[in-house]
Amino acid sequence: MEKRRLKMGMVGGGITGFIGAIHLRAALMENRVELVCGCFSSNPEVSKESGRFYSLSDHRIYSNYREMFDKEASLPEEERMDFVVIVTPNKYHFEPAMMALERGFHVVLDKPMTFSLEEAKALQRKVEETGLVLALTHVYTGYPAVKEMKARIAAGELGKLRRLYVEYPQGWLAERIELQEGNNAGWRTDPKLSGKAGCMGDIGTHAWHLCEYVTGLKVVELCAELNTFVPGRPIDDDGVAMMRMEEGVKALLSASQIAVGEANNINIRVYGEKGGIKWVQEDPNRLFLRRGNSPEEVIHIGGNHPYLGTRAKWNIRTPGGHPEGFIEAFANIYRNFTLTVLAKMNNMTPTAEMLDFPGVYDGVRGMQFIETVVESGWSEGAKWVKWKE
Amino acid sequence: MEKRRLKMGMVGGGITGFIGAIHLRAALMENRVELVCGCFSSNPEVSKESGRFYSLSDHRIYSNYREMFDKEASLPEEERMDFVVIVTPNKYHFEPAMMALERGFHVVLDKPMTFSLEEAKALQRKVEETGLVLALTHVYTGYPAVKEMKARIAAGELGKLRRLYVEYPQGWLAERIELQEGNNAGWRTDPKLSGKAGCMGDIGTHAWHLCEYVTGLKVVELCAELNTFVPGRPIDDDGVAMMRMEEGVKALLSASQIAVGEANNINIRVYGEKGGIKWVQEDPNRLFLRRGNSPEEVIHIGGNHPYLGTRAKWNIRTPGGHPEGFIEAFANIYRNFTLTVLAKMNNMTPTAEMLDFPGVYDGVRGMQFIETVVESGWSEGAKWVKWKE
Amino acid sequence: MEKRRLKMGMVGGGITGFIGAIHLRAALMENRVELVCGCFSSNPEVSKESGRFYSLSDHRIYSNYREMFDKEASLPEEERMDFVVIVTPNKYHFEPAMMALERGFHVVLDKPMTFSLEEAKALQRKVEETGLVLALTHVYTGYPAVKEMKARIAAGELGKLRRLYVEYPQGWLAERIELQEGNNAGWRTDPKLSGKAGCMGDIGTHAWHLCEYVTGLKVVELCAELNTFVPGRPIDDDGVAMMRMEEGVKALLSASQIAVGEANNINIRVYGEKGGIKWVQEDPNRLFLRRGNSPEEVIHIGGNHPYLGTRAKWNIRTPGGHPEGFIEAFANIYRNFTLTVLAKMNNMTPTAEMLDFPGVYDGVRGMQFIETVVESGWSEGAKWVKWKE
Amino acid sequence: MEKRRLKMGMVGGGITGFIGAIHLRAALMENRVELVCGCFSSNPEVSKESGRFYSLSDHRIYSNYREMFDKEASLPEEERMDFVVIVTPNKYHFEPAMMALERGFHVVLDKPMTFSLEEAKALQRKVEETGLVLALTHVYTGYPAVKEMKARIAAGELGKLRRLYVEYPQGWLAERIELQEGNNAGWRTDPKLSGKAGCMGDIGTHAWHLCEYVTGLKVVELCAELNTFVPGRPIDDDGVAMMRMEEGVKALLSASQIAVGEANNINIRVYGEKGGIKWVQEDPNRLFLRRGNSPEEVIHIGGNHPYLGTRAKWNIRTPGGHPEGFIEAFANIYRNFTLTVLAKMNNMTPTAEMLDFPGVYDGVRGMQFIETVVESGWSEGAKWVKWKE
Repeated sequence: MEKRRLKMGMVGGGITGFIGAIHLRAALMENRVELVCGCFSSNPEVSKESGRFYSLSDHRIYSNYREMFDKEASLPEEERMDFVVIVTPNKYHFEPAMMALERGFHVVLDKPMTFSLEEAKALQRKVEETGLVLALTHVYTGYPAVKEMKARIAAGELGKLRRLYVEYPQGWLAERIELQEGNNAGWRTDPKLSGKAGCMGDIGTHAWHLCEYVTGLKVVELCAELNTFVPGRPIDDDGVAMMRMEEGVKALLSASQIAVGEANNINIRVYGEKGGIKWVQEDPNRLFLRRGNSPEEVIHIGGNHPYLGTRAKWNIRTPGGHPEGFIEAFANIYRNFTLTVLAKMNNMTPTAEMLDFPGVYDGVRGMQFIETVVESGWSEGAKWVKWKE
Repeated sequence: MEKRRLKMGMVGGGITGFIGAIHLRAALMENRVELVCGCFSSNPEVSKESGRFYSLSDHRIYSNYREMFDKEASLPEEERMDFVVIVTPNKYHFEPAMMALERGFHVVLDKPMTFSLEEAKALQRKVEETGLVLALTHVYTGYPAVKEMKARIAAGELGKLRRLYVEYPQGWLAERIELQEGNNAGWRTDPKLSGKAGCMGDIGTHAWHLCEYVTGLKVVELCAELNTFVPGRPIDDDGVAMMRMEEGVKALLSASQIAVGEANNINIRVYGEKGGIKWVQEDPNRLFLRRGNSPEEVIHIGGNHPYLGTRAKWNIRTPGGHPEGFIEAFANIYRNFTLTVLAKMNNMTPTAEMLDFPGVYDGVRGMQFIETVVESGWSEGAKWVKWKE
Repeated sequence: MEKRRLKMGMVGGGITGFIGAIHLRAALMENRVELVCGCFSSNPEVSKESGRFYSLSDHRIYSNYREMFDKEASLPEEERMDFVVIVTPNKYHFEPAMMALERGFHVVLDKPMTFSLEEAKALQRKVEETGLVLALTHVYTGYPAVKEMKARIAAGELGKLRRLYVEYPQGWLAERIELQEGNNAGWRTDPKLSGKAGCMGDIGTHAWHLCEYVTGLKVVELCAELNTFVPGRPIDDDGVAMMRMEEGVKALLSASQIAVGEANNINIRVYGEKGGIKWVQEDPNRLFLRRGNSPEEVIHIGGNHPYLGTRAKWNIRTPGGHPEGFIEAFANIYRNFTLTVLAKMNNMTPTAEMLDFPGVYDGVRGMQFIETVVESGWSEGAKWVKWKE
Repeated sequence: MEKRRLKMGMVGGGITGFIGAIHLRAALMENRVELVCGCFSSNPEVSKESGRFYSLSDHRIYSNYREMFDKEASLPEEERMDFVVIVTPNKYHFEPAMMALERGFHVVLDKPMTFSLEEAKALQRKVEETGLVLALTHVYTGYPAVKEMKARIAAGELGKLRRLYVEYPQGWLAERIELQEGNNAGWRTDPKLSGKAGCMGDIGTHAWHLCEYVTGLKVVELCAELNTFVPGRPIDDDGVAMMRMEEGVKALLSASQIAVGEANNINIRVYGEKGGIKWVQEDPNRLFLRRGNSPEEVIHIGGNHPYLGTRAKWNIRTPGGHPEGFIEAFANIYRNFTLTVLAKMNNMTPTAEMLDFPGVYDGVRGMQFIETVVESGWSEGAKWVKWKE
């Protein structure tokens, strides 16, 4: 019989943060997923409380993930979880992900994929070995407008590409709030939990990923300057990278967490020989397309607009004028991941649309980006460094 | 034992339209609802296919709603549906809603609530009699920005109100597409299915509702001009109403479905003695607040912004810069409705936050709006007509 | 010998207001006009001080306009003024304008043209009799974007027109500032100086003029509601008019001077069978053109954009991306007026481009608008009134 | 007797380009300047035709500037020109400027100031020696919004500065249009006429100047990458510079002339410890000010807004909602220059407001910027180079 829904477990994502609930909404929205178990916090009380808030029965709320994986693996197939979502600080991505894969569970992971490049490569090998599916929540490539941008670039509407600007300004770390309780700044600014990079790992990777996704080209070399503006902080909170991509494309990436007043303003502009295109995440349902000698075009995102491509439409839920947002972009990753897993379970071949979500290879390249940008950015201020494999 | 989730059934909303899936996503997102049954179309094949797409078992997919209500009512309490969502043409709101209430099911209804004012009043009596909960999906008042607008007006930030503009331009009916297949224009432009009003019923009611919701004031009199611009169409596709509200507030309402190129651009501006405030649905996460002698303020919607009020925050899911949209606004109606029903089921008193969703009284007033605007707008072009009770 | 520049005199426009200097800049910018004389205020001290600030010699600064007209008329042709600009309260438009025409001077007048419709008709007769040129500063039709809008509508890009919205919200009269000194509110809110209408005369006329200019159609009937929101004010400070234009076009006009926080936000949207177009004066260098099934077009104003028409280009001074504004729009009226007068003086026929500025016929219709809107708006709230001839 | 107006001559700026007429309008607008002579082109026919178009008598239209300077210097004081505007390719700035200064004429020069740094320093010495006034048309610092930005930064509203982004994208050189006639691309892309830098000299200098102007801080070191995207072009048409400014401020500058579809989109964002501020030239009458925990403020530019500082107001001509633009920004340089010269001529001390225009020291630093960015950008791709003195 055809399997139509997947059973999800969760590691991390308790009610003390906001991102667990985002994952849950994104996963549940299409009615292809149900939450069956979770270990939501290293604090058993928080885990219990979160699980109950999420309407789980107590016996499927766990206090550590090893126990969860073992217990779930022992349940009958129609009961046990099919995949696990891991929403923990970077330091704690690898172990649960590896454990899950070893027990046959598919995985959804927050970015950056791991704490170190070595861990990333190990995950890649495990995914290749098991044939399981791993999705990485580079959420910004889940927006339909970004899909449309990619499709139009691929179709040559801009001509040969030349120049790209990507920015990711935030302001929430403009003060040393990591010394206070009750925010998510603590582990993000602690190299022992976050990894080599702070700002560049947390948001620079999203900006880098957007560049490669929309152009289909890889960065080959970069020259960066990383900064720590807030005194006492042991990690970058701001940075810039001049990047050389394949086919001679030049990209300029900036990311900052001290741009006071900016919320989450990731945006990208790509220019080719014939046109330029712009997308701004905080206004996500419009693309701005300019060609040299005709009026600027505003490409509105909506299921009923005939000028949109099939890939965008696959990822749109509403007609024009009914704004979609962050949760829907997240939900696109979940839907495509879910459909891919269901296809495999039902012995079907996932379509290209289904396979359009970030995975383990994006994760490895993300860790390579962090390695490269950190070497270039800190060593002596800025020098050209070849992409680290 | 505490009841944490509700079981939902659906009437209408099959996969040939888009609005059923919107309701479903909005309902499911918070993990407080599961879909258990449905009669998705008067066409049994479409109903079956839709139910399967929505992952229902065949025995909970029905071909008519009477059967569904009877069958579900006979199921054990832990299995049967708790509430039904009715997503059908206006003509077919009343009968299933009344049947559901009579069998003890709570109801979610699309607007306008009924085909006629009489039906609306009958529903009101039934709701009052049964104590059941009825939610009406005037979705635009589900946006957190609109909640913030209402709160600031109530707090006197604009001073005594004077003047209000509300607009709802759409362009999708600029041609007579109701003569073609495959769109939702057919019943909306047919007075036998839609009721006395076309444009004014379909979208004018949303605009009217927004006025009363954000100001807390009622319309007492209006002077309207209704138009049919597309030849052969038997109902209004455009209109304007000058409205007099309580406390001397003057409102100007315009709605059009022939404003070519407009998607769903409902927007509202309210001016008082001390300030003015603006909201535009297609850019839903910002409010623009102006006072006379200080810079304009852009109030960004986001869970972490300390300047937002509690009512907005109750309805926000993401931090600033992570756009929310139409589905989340819808989901706010579902969440508040769900929590109200759960509170009642658990013998608790719903809080004011939970009760903040449109209901049967809004539905009756909406039908009165249609009666009034149609009398004023058609009789002799435009004359002042007192609100019809 | 060819005459290349005109000599300008001024009535009103002293340095205690701002609009005199605007007229002066607009007139001087193209180097086709020089200021030679003026009577800048009924207060001789202010007139003297203003004239000196404007670099006039004392003997060309006058203390009353009758003296100025007589004195200038007696000067040799190469010295005396060619035209006069009248920048006074409405009450004082007619007398100096008539005097100037009687002595053979061309005239530039602020709108509304006169205090009463009778005066307007008398000016019309005098202009027709003398063959002199009279320009009326309905400045908003001087913007190149508005010219482009008109051209595209005329060319049928929107198809047959249906629906038009024009708004003119301001907020500066939200309090009774006319009781204070040092602002221009006094005469504008005094029916003895302003005429029958306040808001509708001061800014409503601009909105009405824009409607007729861009469509090329006339208003034939209207139904208005005028309001006085500020207690004690003896004239309208807000109003709305539903207007029926030729060819079945419906227009909705709103104007307000109590929309707190609004500066000067005149804007217009026109919809036809095939498309819609929008212009917003506070963002004057862009037009937004929407058709049903293709992306929205943003038409950027700039001399180098090949997609713009000849009429827009005639009125553009800069390449794209170099914003033009209010003073340039004003300057377009002056340039076209000046070129028309120079052509006549040089016995040439002015081209259609040169003749594209508002004149005495616009002035008469503007006074008719005031008569009509006041009758409809006040008599009994709102009734349909035929355009008053 | 008090001198109230200045007599202007012009070198270059004929009617075959657009910039001469811009200078003229900017100079004439305030009625403090009259055009008395010019040598508008190296082509005598074009010069003659331009002079006549600008309403000059034939005997004040010259065919070479040496003749003009000599002839004008010999005229009686009340007739001869007071200052000269030089609007020629960079290669031809120095000689006429030096000649003018040597004959006692004040000078207005287009940027970059000269062809080489040496020439710039020679001009500086001559200005210091003669006490004459030299204005440089870095027009973007003439906008009132930029003045307000500078004032608020100086007043500490952003706290200690940290990070600055400045961009100047244009697209008009995306193809090799310099091979065609009838545009201004020829000399700008020819190192023999333009100097060492193309894009960086033409527009990069504007971006750099804006950085130093608004912050009051100097660049001390930079690391750049320059690019030539259009094959065959012998000079940069795109570039990026990471810049270190005084007090630890980091700036990122990008400039491009191959960003297809961009018109003239110079913009700047500055972030400090307490706030961030943004200005975009194509929307010049608004500043966006963000602080961490309060709503974003939109600072509207207008003479009547009480929240604006005195320096902005000195440079504003209209009330809020009446847009000013590029020509008014230009006119601010002319007005302040003119008032400074008039003050000196009348033996008065120019005020700080009058002296607020770019001059010879900005010109020298601009040439140093070009030297530094070219050395860093081309030598080996990118290396840190100390500011060249």
